[in-house]
Amino acid sequence: MTVEERRQQLIGVALELFARRSPDEVSIDEIASAAGISRPLVYHYFPGKLSLYEAALKRAAEDLADRFREPHEGPLGARLLRVMRRYFDFVDDHGPGFSALMRGGPAVGSSTTNALVDSVRQAAYVQILSHLRIEEPPARLELVVRSWISLAESTALLWLDGRRVPREELEVQLVQDFAALVAVGAAHDGPTAALLKPLLKDEPGDGPFADLVTRLVSLAA
Amino acid sequence: MTVEERRQQLIGVALELFARRSPDEVSIDEIASAAGISRPLVYHYFPGKLSLYEAALKRAAEDLADRFREPHEGPLGARLLRVMRRYFDFVDDHGPGFSALMRGGPAVGSSTTNALVDSVRQAAYVQILSHLRIEEPPARLELVVRSWISLAESTALLWLDGRRVPREELEVQLVQDFAALVAVGAAHDGPTAALLKPLLKDEPGDGPFADLVTRLVSLAA
Repeated sequence: MTVEERRQQLIGVALELFARRSPDEVSIDEIASAAGISRPLVYHYFPGKLSLYEAALKRAAEDLADRFREPHEGPLGARLLRVMRRYFDFVDDHGPGFSALMRGGPAVGSSTTNALVDSVRQAAYVQILSHLRIEEPPARLELVVRSWISLAESTALLWLDGRRVPREELEVQLVQDFAALVAVGAAHDGPTAALLKPLLKDEPGDGPFADLVTRLVSLAA
Repeated sequence: MTVEERRQQLIGVALELFARRSPDEVSIDEIASAAGISRPLVYHYFPGKLSLYEAALKRAAEDLADRFREPHEGPLGARLLRVMRRYFDFVDDHGPGFSALMRGGPAVGSSTTNALVDSVRQAAYVQILSHLRIEEPPARLELVVRSWISLAESTALLWLDGRRVPREELEVQLVQDFAALVAVGAAHDGPTAALLKPLLKDEPGDGPFADLVTRLVSLAA
C-alpha cells in the first residue's frame, strides 16, 4: 500500500470503531489491531492520536456534507425528505462518531472540530438556499434556515439517545418543521414571504408539506 | 473583604469584561486591573485562569437558568414570551460571554463548559414541562421540547452575529416556533396531541399563539 492508501485505510478503520464507541474510548492500540498493523506503524502514518482522529472526523464531515447534495428537480418537500433520509442514514451508521463530531469532547481538538462542524452547517445552508433559488436571503430567512439546521442536528443527537421515535417519522417531521418555521418567519417578514410564496405553488397534494396541512386540520377538528 | 466576597467581586469583573469581548481575549492582567488589585492577588483567589473563567461561566449559567422560572399563572403563550424576554436580556447583556458558554472554545475547559450548558438546557426543559403540567412526557414531546430549546439557543447566537433582526420580534417568533413545532409533533403523535389539547383552550385571542394563527391565515390568503 502507498502511504496515502494506508492513511485512508486507518481512517476507515477508525471510523468503523467510532460508529460503535465514542472516539474518546477508542485507543490507537485498537485501531492498530483492527487494521492488522503494529502500533508504531500507526504513528508512522499519523504523528499522534489527535491527528488520526481529526483526519477521521474530517472525512466524516465531508461525507455528511456530500449527503446534502440533491438534484434540483421535482417538488421541494420531496427533495428535502430525500436529504433527511440520507442524513439519518449517516447518523444511524456513525452514532458515537456523529455525537463526537457535533458535541466535541476531550479527545477532540475543539477548534478543529468546531471548524469541521461549521463547514458541515455551511454546506447544508448553501444547499438549501440553492434549492430555494435565493442568492442573498433576507436576514430573517437566513436566521430561520440556519436555526432549522441546528434543530435538525439536535433532533438527530436526541434520537441517538435511545432511538425511542422511529427515524422515518422524524425524517418527515423535520421536513415539516422546516415548513412550519419558514411559515412563522414569513408571517413576520414581508421579504421572506414574498420570496417563498412562488416556491410553494408546485408542491403536490401528496407531498410532506400538504401532509402537514392535512394533519393540522384534522388535529384542530 | 472576605475571601468569598473577593472571589465574587472578581467573578463579577470577569463577567463584565466577557460581556464585551470573548473570554479567550481577556487576560488575568485585565481582570486584576479592572478589580484594582495585583495579578498575584488574583491567583491567590483563583489558582489559575481556567478556574476563574469556569467560576464566571458557572455564575452566568446559574443566572441564565434562573430566568426560566416563571409563575404558573395566566396563559402559557404569555408566560413563555416573558421568559423569552428575560432570555434575550441575558443574551443582550452577556454577548461574547454567552457565545463562549454555548460554543465552548480554547480558553474554556470543554467538559466543564459542556456540563454547565447541559445544566442550563435541563433547567429550561424542567421548567417547560412544569408549565405544561406534564411529569413524564411521551418520547416525541420530550424530543420536541428539547430540540426547541436548542433552536432558541442557535437563534440567539445567530442574532448576536450582527443583530440584524429586532430582538422583540425574535422573542415573539420563538414563542410561535414553539407552538409550531409542538403542533407538528402532535400531528404525528397521538399521546402528545392528547396531552396538549386541553392546555390550549385557555389561550386568549390576543396572545402570541392566536397571533400566529391570524398571521398564517392572512399569509395564505
